[in-house]
Amino acid sequence: MSRDLRLHYAPDNASLVIRLALLERGLPFETVLVDRTSRAQDSETYRRINPAGRIPALETNDGPIFETAAILLWLSDRFGGLLPAPDAPDRGAALSWLFFLSNTLHADLRLMFYAERYTADAAGLRASLAPQVTRSLNLLDAQVAQAAPWLGGDVPSPLDLYLCAMLRWCALYPQGGTGWFRLGDFPGLRALAIRTEARDSARIAAAAEGLGPRPFSAPQPANPPEGSAL
Amino acid sequence: MSRDLRLHYAPDNASLVIRLALLERGLPFETVLVDRTSRAQDSETYRRINPAGRIPALETNDGPIFETAAILLWLSDRFGGLLPAPDAPDRGAALSWLFFLSNTLHADLRLMFYAERYTADAAGLRASLAPQVTRSLNLLDAQVAQAAPWLGGDVPSPLDLYLCAMLRWCALYPQGGTGWFRLGDFPGLRALAIRTEARDSARIAAAAEGLGPRPFSAPQPANPPEGSAL
Repeated sequence: MSRDLRLHYAPDNASLVIRLALLERGLPFETVLVDRTSRAQDSETYRRINPAGRIPALETNDGPIFETAAILLWLSDRFGGLLPAPDAPDRGAALSWLFFLSNTLHADLRLMFYAERYTADAAGLRASLAPQVTRSLNLLDAQVAQAAPWLGGDVPSPLDLYLCAMLRWCALYPQGGTGWFRLGDFPGLRALAIRTEARDSARIAAAAEGLGPRPFSAPQPANPPEGSAL
Repeated sequence: MSRDLRLHYAPDNASLVIRLALLERGLPFETVLVDRTSRAQDSETYRRINPAGRIPALETNDGPIFETAAILLWLSDRFGGLLPAPDAPDRGAALSWLFFLSNTLHADLRLMFYAERYTADAAGLRASLAPQVTRSLNLLDAQVAQAAPWLGGDVPSPLDLYLCAMLRWCALYPQGGTGWFRLGDFPGLRALAIRTEARDSARIAAAAEGLGPRPFSAPQPANPPEGSAL
């Protein structure tokens, strides 16, 4: 089955998280570039795979799956991975933090990046979000210090990979609007970023999407061999 | 084990979704009121249960779980329910929509309700969010029409209950700012709301939290026997 995984991706989009998880788990997959410059994510073809029109989507033998965290959880449950199994005692804690990453940290970052779409007061909206995102990162810094196998352990888990990608985006997007963020303020997260970017999975993903030599701890704007991040 | 479920709740908060799911599944539980008027959700005591300081949290024999959708998924996997099992073919689709409810529809509604916390241009922010939320509801209306057992089926699933609570909130919050929403524009969602509020689970939850006789299809502001919704 794992030979039939097709990841619809754009460079440095949330699909990066899935690419990292597939590589880290050693699952073979194909990629299909979603051309953001022509807004292919809004096309009828793509919306048959993901009706919400967002990147990523993963085609599987069980049909398409969308939403980054849903794909992470499905891959982990289906193929085994570093999330606790459904009957494990720490399953509930791992799910709590996975949803927190998805509906709080990621949702806030989306709003911060695209603030102009929501209000004429984009600067004010960003200024209000910055302390909220900082609080979330502080909570995660404390949680990572507990070094559970599913968050902050020695081997990056799906949650760690998701978090590292978001640390990258905090430092890069929107261009000129990231002054609120200093990775060094979160020592546990910084250490996580450094050890994760040393993994083969991160090196391979960084090469495929043009993310530079230190994609999480000292990110550079994406310079991808194909496609566009924005 | 199910005798040891303690739901931390406030009336008409997201904890309503968990109460409905527990009642629908017939699982015994205790409730603990979180007093929003004294901002008990920010207290050290509560943050030991949910570090993010949001309502709900569920105490279990495996420790506390937070995030509405995480609790729904955990309950369903642990006790059986109307979400597909981890190895079922439609697990991926169900997870996709569960995360969509959590990180898109619910996140957008939170922003709409609390717009004043984010910008001096709260009216502009709400006006931008309204069409986005409408698009999400249209996607869900189309999905509900497919009547999967886990979304739009005869017996309300955890996703259906979550969606019905959000339909209620669309109609009620913020006071004076709900003119964009007409349930009748979404025939499938309206039918879902009507058949769900006829269930014993909904009647019992409505009595416990003061939600009125038609809590999803024709909601009235909460008039709870204890605690405060806001």
